[in-house]
Amino acid sequence: MIEAIDSQQIDDFLSKNAGKKVVAVQGLGFVGAVMSLVCANGISEEYAVIGVDLPTEEAITKINALNNGEFPIASSDPKVQEYFEKSRQKSNFLATHNTYAYKKADVIIIDINLDVAKVSDEEKELQSYDVSLSGFKKAIQSIGEVCKLNVLILVETTVPPGTCQFVVKPIIEEEFEKRGLSFDGFIGHSYERVMPGPKYIDSIQNFYRVYSGVDERSADRVESFLKTIIRTDEYPLTRLSNTHATEMAKVLENSFRAMNISFIQEWSNYAEEAGVNLYEVIQAIRMRPTHKNIMMPGLGVGGYCLTKDPLLASWSKQTLFKSNDPLTNSEKAVQVNDQMPLRAFEIIEENTPEGLAGKDILVLGVSYLNDVGDTRYTPVELLSRKLLRSKANLSLHDPFLGYWEELERAVETNFGKMLERDYDLIVVSTAHSAYRNNAQLVDYIRSKKNLFVLDCWGVFSLDELILIKENNRVKVIGRGDI
Amino acid sequence: MIEAIDSQQIDDFLSKNAGKKVVAVQGLGFVGAVMSLVCANGISEEYAVIGVDLPTEEAITKINALNNGEFPIASSDPKVQEYFEKSRQKSNFLATHNTYAYKKADVIIIDINLDVAKVSDEEKELQSYDVSLSGFKKAIQSIGEVCKLNVLILVETTVPPGTCQFVVKPIIEEEFEKRGLSFDGFIGHSYERVMPGPKYIDSIQNFYRVYSGVDERSADRVESFLKTIIRTDEYPLTRLSNTHATEMAKVLENSFRAMNISFIQEWSNYAEEAGVNLYEVIQAIRMRPTHKNIMMPGLGVGGYCLTKDPLLASWSKQTLFKSNDPLTNSEKAVQVNDQMPLRAFEIIEENTPEGLAGKDILVLGVSYLNDVGDTRYTPVELLSRKLLRSKANLSLHDPFLGYWEELERAVETNFGKMLERDYDLIVVSTAHSAYRNNAQLVDYIRSKKNLFVLDCWGVFSLDELILIKENNRVKVIGRGDI
Repeated sequence: MIEAIDSQQIDDFLSKNAGKKVVAVQGLGFVGAVMSLVCANGISEEYAVIGVDLPTEEAITKINALNNGEFPIASSDPKVQEYFEKSRQKSNFLATHNTYAYKKADVIIIDINLDVAKVSDEEKELQSYDVSLSGFKKAIQSIGEVCKLNVLILVETTVPPGTCQFVVKPIIEEEFEKRGLSFDGFIGHSYERVMPGPKYIDSIQNFYRVYSGVDERSADRVESFLKTIIRTDEYPLTRLSNTHATEMAKVLENSFRAMNISFIQEWSNYAEEAGVNLYEVIQAIRMRPTHKNIMMPGLGVGGYCLTKDPLLASWSKQTLFKSNDPLTNSEKAVQVNDQMPLRAFEIIEENTPEGLAGKDILVLGVSYLNDVGDTRYTPVELLSRKLLRSKANLSLHDPFLGYWEELERAVETNFGKMLERDYDLIVVSTAHSAYRNNAQLVDYIRSKKNLFVLDCWGVFSLDELILIKENNRVKVIGRGDI
Repeated sequence: MIEAIDSQQIDDFLSKNAGKKVVAVQGLGFVGAVMSLVCANGISEEYAVIGVDLPTEEAITKINALNNGEFPIASSDPKVQEYFEKSRQKSNFLATHNTYAYKKADVIIIDINLDVAKVSDEEKELQSYDVSLSGFKKAIQSIGEVCKLNVLILVETTVPPGTCQFVVKPIIEEEFEKRGLSFDGFIGHSYERVMPGPKYIDSIQNFYRVYSGVDERSADRVESFLKTIIRTDEYPLTRLSNTHATEMAKVLENSFRAMNISFIQEWSNYAEEAGVNLYEVIQAIRMRPTHKNIMMPGLGVGGYCLTKDPLLASWSKQTLFKSNDPLTNSEKAVQVNDQMPLRAFEIIEENTPEGLAGKDILVLGVSYLNDVGDTRYTPVELLSRKLLRSKANLSLHDPFLGYWEELERAVETNFGKMLERDYDLIVVSTAHSAYRNNAQLVDYIRSKKNLFVLDCWGVFSLDELILIKENNRVKVIGRGDI
């Protein structure tokens, strides 16, 4: 299965790209794969880019796909395919599991994951959590073992604040010592703000960046590199005093977002009780520039960042900075968000007094985010598991996903097909655009009687809700009864 | 003392303003007084405006001042004086305690306070709180007893959601029943977003408004009235479905703000522990449009709204809408904010191991907000009380206030005078612009030895901090050691 890329092949690739500086990207996930494309299609410099991942089966499949002209991440952003094609034409992008790439790189960008292991009970009550740096440390070590003396190591991974100074730098220095050398390179931190979706490439190339270095010369080196791949004329860079600061900025950014989502949860319940349409209320509040970031109600939060970054921060505070106090309220936000889907389940239960066993439920959307095919930590998972545990039959639809890995279940992408059969309940669980102003869906519901429809994201308009209510029951999260 | 405005005087005022519609503004506080000026200087219609307040000694003083050409609220907004002068020239503004005004009014705007009684211990731990509607109900009653059949009653007061429907409407209808009549007027709600400060008038006249009515025709009437006093061409109005919704919007707006301030509190401590400058971090984060509203660290929160509105909401949820659950997290935000000044006190204590008794402390700023002379619920109060209880001597400075009512203490407005004597400690407790880039202050500190300076708002630049540190100690809230 493995199409090994041996060191000779890397050398061949580099000699074809002679004269170009070499960028190695460590990690070919949602960030690294697209970051590689951005580097291969730089603004003011064209790099020879080598994407490196581990020799696991999954990664090897990805590596082979990349080398065979198939980009492994489906995306609604046409630029992804376009950039990939261009790098193919220029032959300046290679994927490999061979760490020989680090030996040749002038710049090494670290885009691997650093996970939080959450221990939660069935109701997503957070019992404990832990951060293991061992995989991350190993990855840094694999660089230090072979990298150039004057390499730039740029950490993009979301790390616990303190990591560049307390973990990355000592490991690199130690590895150089073992090699009988003294590290003369640069270590910096500049976190990504990647949004998979229709602006995938732009979220890297055309967006604001914050950066720092473990020392002044490292920061300078990061700056000059970023300027070659990002449109810094339109999106000026922000340099912070040290790597602690940029590392904190990233987890604070995401904690702010997580907190604002958790904040609206109890107001969502309140609006339901008071018969208020919270969506129109929030729309009105957002008119104020100081209140633009207030969040809408919904089913819950997913994705790789908001669900863990507050915990990364709190862990760092206590472990790397020896504080006695966790970030209590930020941790609490994660907890509230993790449990949000329970509200949807509660509403479904309340509206199915005869019990859920044997009920046929159409679940519209499994992605955690609208208009994206991404199920990482999707809130639909908790809702679905609760429904399955109640012995309901689930029919899953998502326009962006044919298969749901976490639940090991097929997902239908064809909407019309879903409406060929009968259901007892319909749940709009992801706010995909396809579900808005969808006359087919509304007509289907109107043709039925006594269906219960739960709209978790306020996708139905008032007019649609009135039509749906003619013969059926409907409830919207964050909105009083119609 | 009372210069009674009898009904005859009101009639005289109105005959001088014959042909103009009459607006009565109930309540002449921070909102009502300026709202009166806005109505007296409308966009497309010129009203005869009568400001009405209670016959208390304080209010009578205010009423007399207004009628004698002195606007009772000092403001940095020149438009306030300008609008007041214009209304004097046009003779279309009268102040009174005589409810006869309500009998003559076509529009009655309610701008009275509706307070939350908080019971807290000395450390501002919130023990309980209560909302009493009795004063508010009485005020509505005084309108219902005499007002015109077809009057527009426009509530601007921040009320517990549900108040217009469950309180205002029944009272008015009952009073009309007593009069043997059936109310044929209009009741609406449109909350103000008044910001005392340099844009005081604009925060009413040139800003977005949300409105509603207890029925459709009331909402229409509110809309047409608002269009005559607010620049709705530039700042379009937003109509919501019912008064519950607009009432909720107001308390949600302020709860959002309160929550975002409380959120940053634990990050402020974290930044101090990690040696990070949180001000630069937040500045960097604010580059993202989705994160513009993240708040800076500081001493705490004051003012009339953020300190109580989440509680108003939670009270309404439980009392008017019979919910079992309070708005736990929003209540918690109030609690966290109330206690924020304790952190400043803690830092001062830690840096004064010999004890605070007899120490001379210069307190720079007593207002709750920068560049405003307003001490309502200022966080400087808790800090000052803690310092006084520790038997420290306080010297208070504020460029906008000569006297601090809550503490019954003189405040010096002359900055130079403050620097004529020696202190053991200096606390920058309000972020007045006057304290930024203030060479006089920095020079003063540099001329001393072993002073301890606490900057609660990050007003000193890095360069200034380095200068201050030469001979003295300095600490900034939300920033690691320099």
